[in-house]
Amino acid sequence: MKRSERLINMTNYLLAHPHELISLSLFVEKYNSAKSSISEDLTLVKKTFLEQGIGEIKTISGVTGGLKFIPKISDELGKKMVDSLCEEMSEEDRLLPGGYVYLSDLLGQPKLLREVGQIIASKYADKKVDYVMTVATKGVPIAQAVSYLLNVPFVIVRRDSKITEGATVSINYASGSSHRIEKMELSKRSLKEDSRVLIVDDFMKGGGTIHGMESLISEFKSTVAGICVFAEARFNGEREIVSPYDSLLFVQDVDTKTKNIKVVPGNIYKKEADEI
Amino acid sequence: MKRSERLINMTNYLLAHPHELISLSLFVEKYNSAKSSISEDLTLVKKTFLEQGIGEIKTISGVTGGLKFIPKISDELGKKMVDSLCEEMSEEDRLLPGGYVYLSDLLGQPKLLREVGQIIASKYADKKVDYVMTVATKGVPIAQAVSYLLNVPFVIVRRDSKITEGATVSINYASGSSHRIEKMELSKRSLKEDSRVLIVDDFMKGGGTIHGMESLISEFKSTVAGICVFAEARFNGEREIVSPYDSLLFVQDVDTKTKNIKVVPGNIYKKEADEI
Repeated sequence: MKRSERLINMTNYLLAHPHELISLSLFVEKYNSAKSSISEDLTLVKKTFLEQGIGEIKTISGVTGGLKFIPKISDELGKKMVDSLCEEMSEEDRLLPGGYVYLSDLLGQPKLLREVGQIIASKYADKKVDYVMTVATKGVPIAQAVSYLLNVPFVIVRRDSKITEGATVSINYASGSSHRIEKMELSKRSLKEDSRVLIVDDFMKGGGTIHGMESLISEFKSTVAGICVFAEARFNGEREIVSPYDSLLFVQDVDTKTKNIKVVPGNIYKKEADEI
Repeated sequence: MKRSERLINMTNYLLAHPHELISLSLFVEKYNSAKSSISEDLTLVKKTFLEQGIGEIKTISGVTGGLKFIPKISDELGKKMVDSLCEEMSEEDRLLPGGYVYLSDLLGQPKLLREVGQIIASKYADKKVDYVMTVATKGVPIAQAVSYLLNVPFVIVRRDSKITEGATVSINYASGSSHRIEKMELSKRSLKEDSRVLIVDDFMKGGGTIHGMESLISEFKSTVAGICVFAEARFNGEREIVSPYDSLLFVQDVDTKTKNIKVVPGNIYKKEADEI
């Protein structure tokens, strides 16, 4: 196969297999080319991926070595994406009765979800995540977008039991915004013990739901690898949440009279979240 | 920019912008290269995408012309993917009480979802889909996978009302398997009138849920562009569904005593679904 064809094919292959250990010999066989040619190709791909902000290609040496494509966008690009998200979120017709913000259309747009996935997967690229966890329903698209790029499964916690889940583990938690005791459950076979779990969700107010997921993770004898929400809202009550978290957006102010929503960037690019 | 770098970058760009009209001048400016060089690059990319089963690159001529990348895998590759799905689905520990099949783990695997997306998006690539529709919760990952590749938004129909959805349109429908009257609703602002909607779901038994979504689409003065389910089950009662549909898998037999599940390929590669 010619170099030009190899480069196109290799780019496609790497993009479809993020965070996966690929042995050099796979490409040698796949393209029926010499190892030295493949190495030269990879140097080109590596350079372009880095320059264009697509991600890193890591070389793992040793007998079981090879390479790994780590999707990673620059903070600069991520900040730009967050800024344009702030604008979209600030549209006044998003305000619903009770001060809630309408998000469903945004969380159904493939372009936006790809970007949200890139931002979160870049941030947690080195955190050894085994699973992404979210709660049904609106967190699911975010979890899937991140799962695609980290190349790990995602699991969905449910508030209602379904026969199609089999045996479940359930916990009770205090819903921060309404101060009610609610229940959430996760299928017993969906999470292996001793895993590192990244929690994602669409919206955080009191933090009760996130806190509930943390408890659920410890029921599965696993560890929280990180917490990241699409948007957090100013909350004047007592926050349930204790662990450090990242947010892409911060809904600073909602004025139900003037129908104004003020959305600013969240904390994801403001500080390094403490290591958990 | 050098040809090799352009090819890598262009491949990445096209893969991230499926079904989108891209003008040649975008690449001319982006890569600061002559139009003739870009055309040569595209010929190479087009050839490789076709040969490797990644998809087609269509040239649209005229002043408002340009090119479009249409993700499309071959039927041959699709059939292979379906065969391996059959194997995974046939594992005996998937059988739940009542003859239900445990699917949640599969529908949380990024590799599997990418493949399911490729199969469905290939089939409906030319059906002028404006939206992908599904019902919460387990249909969501499938809808998103297809939405990524068709590059159209997806909308989620819910069985329970949520304040964060704003005004909704709701309908009642007969749940085929349990013969109960249930309710489903969709946020009023999530679907524009006169749209063409592709319905996807994880599992079809009596077809009641699918039929409900069809009714909902007509309430929005829109048209069903197609119906595709991940798995359908043998159903001895009267099927609610009338419109033609595609299925990736067919759960032929479930034996609760021996805990055997027999899964065979669905109808997606067996016939051309009638045009709707």
